[in-house]
Amino acid sequence: MTDFETHPDQYNHWKLSVDGPIARLVMSVAEERPHQVGVSHSAMGAAPGQAELRPQTPTAPTYRLKLNSYDLGVDIELADAVQRLRFEHPGVKVVVVSSAISNVFCAGANILMLAASTHPFKVNFCKYTNDTRCSIEDASAGSGQRWIAALGGTASGGGYELALACDDIVLIDDGNSAVSLPEVPLLGVLPGTGGLTRLVDKRKIRRDLADVFSTTAEGCKAKKALEWKLVDATFPRSKFEQAITDRAARAAQAPSNKDGARGIRLSPLAPKVSADRIEYRHVSLEIDAAKRLATLTLRGPQEPAPASVAALHELASESWSLRAMRELDDALCKLRFDFPEIGLVLLKTTGDMDRVLAWSDFLATHRDDWLVQEIALHTARTLRRLDGMAKSLFALATPGSCFGGVLLEAALACDRVYMLNDSNRPVELGISAINDGHLPMQTGLTRLQARLLAEPERAAKLAKEPGKLDTDAAMSAGLVTVAPDEIDWEDDVRLAIEERVSMSPDALTGMEASLRFCGPETTDSKIYGRLTAWQNWIFTRPNATGEHGALKLYGQPERPKFDWRRT
Amino acid sequence: MTDFETHPDQYNHWKLSVDGPIARLVMSVAEERPHQVGVSHSAMGAAPGQAELRPQTPTAPTYRLKLNSYDLGVDIELADAVQRLRFEHPGVKVVVVSSAISNVFCAGANILMLAASTHPFKVNFCKYTNDTRCSIEDASAGSGQRWIAALGGTASGGGYELALACDDIVLIDDGNSAVSLPEVPLLGVLPGTGGLTRLVDKRKIRRDLADVFSTTAEGCKAKKALEWKLVDATFPRSKFEQAITDRAARAAQAPSNKDGARGIRLSPLAPKVSADRIEYRHVSLEIDAAKRLATLTLRGPQEPAPASVAALHELASESWSLRAMRELDDALCKLRFDFPEIGLVLLKTTGDMDRVLAWSDFLATHRDDWLVQEIALHTARTLRRLDGMAKSLFALATPGSCFGGVLLEAALACDRVYMLNDSNRPVELGISAINDGHLPMQTGLTRLQARLLAEPERAAKLAKEPGKLDTDAAMSAGLVTVAPDEIDWEDDVRLAIEERVSMSPDALTGMEASLRFCGPETTDSKIYGRLTAWQNWIFTRPNATGEHGALKLYGQPERPKFDWRRT
Repeated sequence: MTDFETHPDQYNHWKLSVDGPIARLVMSVAEERPHQVGVSHSAMGAAPGQAELRPQTPTAPTYRLKLNSYDLGVDIELADAVQRLRFEHPGVKVVVVSSAISNVFCAGANILMLAASTHPFKVNFCKYTNDTRCSIEDASAGSGQRWIAALGGTASGGGYELALACDDIVLIDDGNSAVSLPEVPLLGVLPGTGGLTRLVDKRKIRRDLADVFSTTAEGCKAKKALEWKLVDATFPRSKFEQAITDRAARAAQAPSNKDGARGIRLSPLAPKVSADRIEYRHVSLEIDAAKRLATLTLRGPQEPAPASVAALHELASESWSLRAMRELDDALCKLRFDFPEIGLVLLKTTGDMDRVLAWSDFLATHRDDWLVQEIALHTARTLRRLDGMAKSLFALATPGSCFGGVLLEAALACDRVYMLNDSNRPVELGISAINDGHLPMQTGLTRLQARLLAEPERAAKLAKEPGKLDTDAAMSAGLVTVAPDEIDWEDDVRLAIEERVSMSPDALTGMEASLRFCGPETTDSKIYGRLTAWQNWIFTRPNATGEHGALKLYGQPERPKFDWRRT
Repeated sequence: MTDFETHPDQYNHWKLSVDGPIARLVMSVAEERPHQVGVSHSAMGAAPGQAELRPQTPTAPTYRLKLNSYDLGVDIELADAVQRLRFEHPGVKVVVVSSAISNVFCAGANILMLAASTHPFKVNFCKYTNDTRCSIEDASAGSGQRWIAALGGTASGGGYELALACDDIVLIDDGNSAVSLPEVPLLGVLPGTGGLTRLVDKRKIRRDLADVFSTTAEGCKAKKALEWKLVDATFPRSKFEQAITDRAARAAQAPSNKDGARGIRLSPLAPKVSADRIEYRHVSLEIDAAKRLATLTLRGPQEPAPASVAALHELASESWSLRAMRELDDALCKLRFDFPEIGLVLLKTTGDMDRVLAWSDFLATHRDDWLVQEIALHTARTLRRLDGMAKSLFALATPGSCFGGVLLEAALACDRVYMLNDSNRPVELGISAINDGHLPMQTGLTRLQARLLAEPERAAKLAKEPGKLDTDAAMSAGLVTVAPDEIDWEDDVRLAIEERVSMSPDALTGMEASLRFCGPETTDSKIYGRLTAWQNWIFTRPNATGEHGALKLYGQPERPKFDWRRT
């Protein structure tokens, strides 16, 4: 089982230090430590010697993470650092990302690892690293952090894509160091972490210059990189460190409502893992491998909503809102990487609706507090991870469920919502102030807006009228797909499940991506929707991954052979 | 060579009739006439007996176009009808599309044809049919036509997608007839002609209902189809024909500035085709198969711009603006279908810049005339076909070229613009009023806006200042990618060409699609950008087209076998 939990004390590849408002994140990848998937001892209750360890990419030859190239293990640590900086160090206003290796910032994703891994792993790896890049941009936009990429050496491929996720890219002007996206010319694939979209849509680099850049393996050195706006500034070696220090210090002057705030510690989730079940405090994930079916149950809060912001700070990472969403996020990552054959996730909730709504309202009401703000932003990110699952999602609302507020969003992220229609056993959906724009999708829409795209006024009205809706009301509000009565429920749901898991997984992924992200597009949604689709396609083509494909042959003397037909 | 020219007199599959403001287009597919690619006799100078005829899908078993299913031949006729209605029958305000077969409107793209055809053909076929559907929507939006889909029987797959391109979908309520998109559940592929995007983005159908609809092979009959807004109206058999007549008559009441307008006849293009060259009056396409390189030369007008709108009507389809763009469009279609291995198109122009600008200005100035309007809209559609080429595009501006106005758009559609920088042999680019919003891309942006996405003010200023720019001015305006001097030109261009054609064609397609369509997205751009990418991927997956794939096995007793991993 892939372990997505880590802690700065355990990092192999990054050094995180915090000095007042300025954090430094130094990439120092340990060559000899490629990612291993370990079944953690405590979770399995196994003695250390019994722990099963297999390389993340089973068919891979051992690879070395040379030149700050990265694999999943490196990115899990980066994601952890991004997250902890926000919760544990709210006073940080500037994050400087740099490299411990001279002349090299980062060589991007490790090619040997990619070439040897399965198609599903490649796609999930790219999605995970995209999520991490988006979380950096979310920290800039939502938490007022300024991320500075201090490129003291060459940043190629994923290395430059990491820089593209930062606000400020500074490249050393030493006659050698360059930024580059060599994937197309060298590997026959696309930059896998949003690079092309960030070039033209985020940085708005001229598309013809982006074309030249993305087809030039050696990339651009300082002068041209600055001229083409691929970087924001360049400095000679003698002035580089000082320039970074100055830029960081200047950005650290920015006003903040978090000055003096005391961070909270993110406690370990440490779920109990068995072969067919992952059990967290508020989340359970049950796997039925034979049916290719997972059941994800989210439990509502045991305790009432905090009486005050101070009370929330007291609860800190044990608060239901934060802990439940961290658990959900962890479960989603495991679902992606460790259960590729699961085709359908049934989403259930149990608990007290009023408490869920009270917690949700609390988040919406107190967003001027930094911790509430961070929890709301984290909730939004987790829900976007749910939107982006390459699995079918059905929500099942039955008596005892509590799809309200934050958990209503989870239901609305699903492809379908089934709700029991039985006057003897009532079920409700609940709307809270949190549903009114606090938890946007990648497209910028709320999930109510996406669901009611034809009726924006109705979506707006619903969002402004918090309360509970019984099955009839929820049906007429347009929030429910099917509402079988007590006689039909079992058969209807069973048949829908059986049908869904019998369909082509590829067609379902393409269909769901097309239907879920209706409406407008943003840089984020273009990365996930359009670029991922192209990437998915290109990864499966013999020109990239066939026996004579460019990715497959990378580093070998043989030249790739292409089927030249353009499609 | 695929022949995209036809005429209502030659239609095999459609019956077109015009009665005052109402046209009827009846689908009556000749089962026994699948599309054959003929090398036309006149073009080849061959005697009839020598004409080479091969089936469009060389490896296909003979297929029959049962139940109004369609192939490329059927769609070429539809595209011709859409085009002719606009130019030849400007008085038409309503087009009713119906079927000659009782109980069946259209069964969609022929599955046996699709299953047997190559991947490039499948992708190009879907793109071509998409272009046709978009041209219907362009006729609604641009020419004020109202398209009514009269579904007197079941419309499945591409049949319903054709209806989705219409403004008004009327389904017979006979207890049997349904609309459906059975591709995902039956074939393991996506609807290939924009269906999913048109469901949620054009018709804004609730995405969860769209999910149920798109996974239900039998689709929805009248009652549910109406309830879910999949259709606009339903009528029982006894009232169906009358209802269609009434709706058509009502729509024909709409005011129009074209009442009494006399159409123009679209004359045949009849290019001269030889093995490595297609020669039109204003367009030449040269093929260098060994280098995987095509050179497309557009010649400016021989005659000055018309002195008046009346003079343009006199020239009719022989006018440079219309003829040159029809020729370009035809050449682009041939490039797509008949030259799959061509990786790079060099775009050149020759002619008199002032004349090109005068013609371009004329189109911008007189758009209140219906014919000018149609020519401008046609020009915009042709340029969008250029934007959507799965080939690299380099424009070469050298002495004697005339990249101005309409032809400047063609240059700006390219991935790169090379312009000679030699004071002894000056070259200019020309901006006309036509470049100021008259020829939008699929994204809704002008090509100036797309090129200068970071500087919308500069794009606006340029568009408002018609005139000619020498190389220095064009460079500083941001319209030129590389401007080598006379010493470097030959080597620079040759190297760029050699490098480009050596790269992975798949990676280039994905990269170009990502860079060309920067900025906002529309239903159209989502269909071409996102949906096409997913479709491309799914078509290549063994789950669809492998030996045991669902598309491959369609109609056979064997059940498909899927690799269940979701990605």
